[in-house]
Amino acid sequence: MNIGILGGGQLGRMLALAAYRLGFEVHFLDPSSDAPAGKVAPQVVGAYDDPGALRDFGTGLDVVTYEFENIPPSTLHTLSHRLRVLPTVEALEVAQDRAKQRAVFERLGLPSPSSALVDTRWDLERASELIGLPAVLKTRHAGYDGKGQIVLQRSQDLEPAWRVLGGQHLILEQFVRFERELSVIAVRGVAGHTCFYPLIENEHREGILRTSCAPIVAPGLQEQAEQYARRLLDELRYTGVLTLELFQVGDRLLINEMATRVHNSGHWTIDGAVTSQFENHLRAITGLPLGSTEPTGWSGMINLLDDVPPLATLLAIDAARVHLYGKDPRPGRKLGHVVVTASSPELRDRYVHLVRRVTDGYQSSNSVPLSAQRPESRPSNHLYPEVARNE
Amino acid sequence: MNIGILGGGQLGRMLALAAYRLGFEVHFLDPSSDAPAGKVAPQVVGAYDDPGALRDFGTGLDVVTYEFENIPPSTLHTLSHRLRVLPTVEALEVAQDRAKQRAVFERLGLPSPSSALVDTRWDLERASELIGLPAVLKTRHAGYDGKGQIVLQRSQDLEPAWRVLGGQHLILEQFVRFERELSVIAVRGVAGHTCFYPLIENEHREGILRTSCAPIVAPGLQEQAEQYARRLLDELRYTGVLTLELFQVGDRLLINEMATRVHNSGHWTIDGAVTSQFENHLRAITGLPLGSTEPTGWSGMINLLDDVPPLATLLAIDAARVHLYGKDPRPGRKLGHVVVTASSPELRDRYVHLVRRVTDGYQSSNSVPLSAQRPESRPSNHLYPEVARNE
Repeated sequence: MNIGILGGGQLGRMLALAAYRLGFEVHFLDPSSDAPAGKVAPQVVGAYDDPGALRDFGTGLDVVTYEFENIPPSTLHTLSHRLRVLPTVEALEVAQDRAKQRAVFERLGLPSPSSALVDTRWDLERASELIGLPAVLKTRHAGYDGKGQIVLQRSQDLEPAWRVLGGQHLILEQFVRFERELSVIAVRGVAGHTCFYPLIENEHREGILRTSCAPIVAPGLQEQAEQYARRLLDELRYTGVLTLELFQVGDRLLINEMATRVHNSGHWTIDGAVTSQFENHLRAITGLPLGSTEPTGWSGMINLLDDVPPLATLLAIDAARVHLYGKDPRPGRKLGHVVVTASSPELRDRYVHLVRRVTDGYQSSNSVPLSAQRPESRPSNHLYPEVARNE
Repeated sequence: MNIGILGGGQLGRMLALAAYRLGFEVHFLDPSSDAPAGKVAPQVVGAYDDPGALRDFGTGLDVVTYEFENIPPSTLHTLSHRLRVLPTVEALEVAQDRAKQRAVFERLGLPSPSSALVDTRWDLERASELIGLPAVLKTRHAGYDGKGQIVLQRSQDLEPAWRVLGGQHLILEQFVRFERELSVIAVRGVAGHTCFYPLIENEHREGILRTSCAPIVAPGLQEQAEQYARRLLDELRYTGVLTLELFQVGDRLLINEMATRVHNSGHWTIDGAVTSQFENHLRAITGLPLGSTEPTGWSGMINLLDDVPPLATLLAIDAARVHLYGKDPRPGRKLGHVVVTASSPELRDRYVHLVRRVTDGYQSSNSVPLSAQRPESRPSNHLYPEVARNE
């Protein structure tokens, strides 16, 4: 089985390692000659819309998938002519456009923060009256250039926000005072069979995922999350892994957004579930039976950002399972992650705390100190003016 | 960190995958253009004693290791001039020669089956009187050409055995009526710190490993195994993973042989231990702290030989974690393995039985049916006339 993957970031790298376990071959297309996946598998270095690069990339493949959403749909269309591309271009087009996402959520009766489209300055006024403030102004098409979201607290914030984001398709969304940010990772096979990982609790800082813990044991919420995901999977006739980012408000879940791919909040599944999200994505797109999504313990995942402590320091933590992506340090860059797995949630939390004590000193200087990151002082919304590409 | 690995078999492939997790790069040298490791990492295709190939291979490496013992010592000597090679050539030379192994065991007071060197037909007569029959005639230098061991039951067996093996350095070893075949995987860091995985029980058929189960809970035996391994590791000033194959006779362990590398009986550690044998070998040779060797459950490993059932059939077994090496089927060839991990040894045994029911139909036609492989009918020694390269 020869699998083509568009995008050569760490998600692609981890897909490759899962593919190798199953005896598969993988090939990447990514414009960067320094892509993390290109260090573990053959890569065509080229633009996603370069016909020659696409031809080279597509040769000899059995199936094509992607590891991030900012692939031009035309690329998938071109490849679809002679190759199976999963998840489909239709699913990608929904994921790429917040307005389309909201429309699908609404059609399926899936709750999400109320929102209104904003194309003009006048739209923004009307939308802010309709939604109320605070609200979050976002670009409709998620960019991975670190820009795209501004929280509007008061009506005076509209004008400066417009000056930054105006001129492109925007959406104004209700600012949700959630209790927790959760995510659910779902997978659907070619024949329509679905599986769900247990709910994951996520903590963001400056818009970037810092920590994920799973399983979250909350049967009512788990059922809601699976119901939402199943409806979306079936509606989109989806094949592969789909991730929903969720806000918990009381005993209710709202869908913040969907990602048509494996997700950073699911990295713990490599070490903490019977089958990893990466292997299950590959099983789905190659028509193989899906694997068990059962957790094998209580897991915590800590992202390594900006800079990484010496490997010897990380590995000296007995419970830490360290994953590095072969990237050079840079502020805001995800360089790796650490997974801890324990026999109880309390022990897991202690391990997470320990790892963060070791790693936080190496994060960028404007990071919030650990003492300010404990749940009691966690900010009530993860949306910050500047958000980086966040996988 | 750039790691060079001599030998590109499945052990090398799994070392590469462990290296990628840690952000390392790997390079292989192997004479086969179809080596399993060459499908996941850059490989120089060339003979181990080809100066040009060695030069290409050695360029830019930080450390060199090997994944099987049949590397010419001169290769390690050549590489040692400008690179760190671990485990050392001295350790390799002991592993390559059964007589040297026995001499080290004796010097350290480590029990092993009694043995005598055999270079002439006359030596064979004398040795068989000294050791008694049955005994096992073996080549001193372990070959990976599938030949090398003949069981002598009666004095009439000496002459035909001599006709097959005579003319090379041989060793006659006592035929041990063991209760179980066990192995212990040990690892020693550059600073001399040692770690040990729990004892593994192994079942061979036709000289090839079929199933490994771990942990074996037997404190007295575990202590013996660790003591033996620690003495060897310290004596050889060893760095990396060392495996001892052991015979259990009553409450006593005899060392059958040592392997200066990661080992087939340790494949379960990828899915069933906090740190895999592959990662711990890499940690050792790169001077990093060793990882926990704790098992995370009750594991069983089933080798996939000769031919593999359709992947969909294997993956339909919920508990099965499937590893394939990207090799074409061939009788006697190890194509992959399956690991099952359970919360009790009883459940693990049921999973192992289930996997074998699925896989045994695909083994070579002269395989013993499953019903004849249960412990009660297991042969009392794994040594068969023809043994393949057995890693």
